[in-house]
Amino acid sequence: MPRFKLTLEYDGSAFHGWQVQADRPTVQATVEAALDNLTGEAPRVQCCGRTDAGVHALGQVAHVDLAFDRLSKPLAAPKLAEALNAHLKPAPVAVLACAELDESFDARLSARERAYRYRIVNRRAPLTVERGLAWRLAWPLKEGAMAEAAGHLVGKHDFSSFRASLCQAKSPVKTLDSLDVARAGELVTVEARARSFLHNQVRIIVGTLALVGQGKWAPGDVAEALARRERNAAGPTAPPDGLYFLGARYPGDSAD
Amino acid sequence: MPRFKLTLEYDGSAFHGWQVQADRPTVQATVEAALDNLTGEAPRVQCCGRTDAGVHALGQVAHVDLAFDRLSKPLAAPKLAEALNAHLKPAPVAVLACAELDESFDARLSARERAYRYRIVNRRAPLTVERGLAWRLAWPLKEGAMAEAAGHLVGKHDFSSFRASLCQAKSPVKTLDSLDVARAGELVTVEARARSFLHNQVRIIVGTLALVGQGKWAPGDVAEALARRERNAAGPTAPPDGLYFLGARYPGDSAD
Repeated sequence: MPRFKLTLEYDGSAFHGWQVQADRPTVQATVEAALDNLTGEAPRVQCCGRTDAGVHALGQVAHVDLAFDRLSKPLAAPKLAEALNAHLKPAPVAVLACAELDESFDARLSARERAYRYRIVNRRAPLTVERGLAWRLAWPLKEGAMAEAAGHLVGKHDFSSFRASLCQAKSPVKTLDSLDVARAGELVTVEARARSFLHNQVRIIVGTLALVGQGKWAPGDVAEALARRERNAAGPTAPPDGLYFLGARYPGDSAD
Repeated sequence: MPRFKLTLEYDGSAFHGWQVQADRPTVQATVEAALDNLTGEAPRVQCCGRTDAGVHALGQVAHVDLAFDRLSKPLAAPKLAEALNAHLKPAPVAVLACAELDESFDARLSARERAYRYRIVNRRAPLTVERGLAWRLAWPLKEGAMAEAAGHLVGKHDFSSFRASLCQAKSPVKTLDSLDVARAGELVTVEARARSFLHNQVRIIVGTLALVGQGKWAPGDVAEALARRERNAAGPTAPPDGLYFLGARYPGDSAD
């Protein structure tokens, strides 16, 4: 049965996260319903990074197996993308790319690197056009101090302080490949790359870096919070609004 | 009576334009209601550029006269901005800046230059996080040809071909100071600057430049459309979603 890799963009504010839930709109349920409408196969869609309610994606990756045995002929990848986009309307989910791959490709298991971006709008005024799409922080952030603090988190560490108490990962040890803080005007972005992340890891990191940016914590306090290996040692969980699943890299993908 | 200059940001998709209308939410009505809530003065707010339904603003300028005679003491400009933002909630309108000026300042009449930005997302996939915030055009746009075409419109011209048939301006002659086309990835932006604009002028210009970008028109066809001085000589009116009132410049403002 042909396997398809889907690259998806979505506005997370319209959904209760990725994963199927009874009686609540989720991205997975929306994509699966559109595929079922199209093919009649009630297929299962597996994604690379299950996002929580309110979290967006600019390059979520998913895979799905489709036999097309109820259609007159199989759909090639570009046609599948077009048809799926038509069936997804009016939900704020779009297929950006679609490729046919062999069954060794698994959106979750094959991923070598995942990337997230967090967007902070640093100003006093409430958000309007970016409402739901960023975290507004009124206190002027020192992005230099945030970048210095971020340096303490890069590398292989026990991230127990930076994972949700509900996190079900077997091990709290992860390798953060990069954690970059940048400012462009009133927009402060934090970008994180790792093979995989713990539950809420990026949002807790951002909530903690925000304490540093506001001068409530010194950059070195983040190293201390990491060393304590307990959730209440780190800062609060930043809201989902600012978080975007950017993309994933797989074996054979070209490097940036 | 003190006069205040307000710099406003808003998400136009929530409103039937700037101007007060019976029984429909508008930006002006929303700001006036918030000011009335705050001061009890039922003040009138005058803006620099009345936007149509669905058109956004990143730097709309307005003025309002407030006596504060029902408050225990007058509000200074920064306090007024904070209080007004609190009263505007949850409407997607925010006060970015507030300054007290003398009564010679008029948001509309004193403006020396107005600037608009139009955002086109040039890709096949439908919009998700940017829905309502940009115009999606699937056909690959040649931004170089669009820029060449834009050059024909810069300067002092009779813009009869580029104004809504309902436009009430006395003269169709306007001076377009600049009209810049730029691409950053899939985002194509058009920025226009002029002392003042005709009704729908920017949206008709963008709708026409899009024809050039798609190769349906040659850049020189835009000069011909301008010369014909009738609305049906130009292209269609681009949707409001992509249009942003960027800001206005007044005597005494520093140059960019």
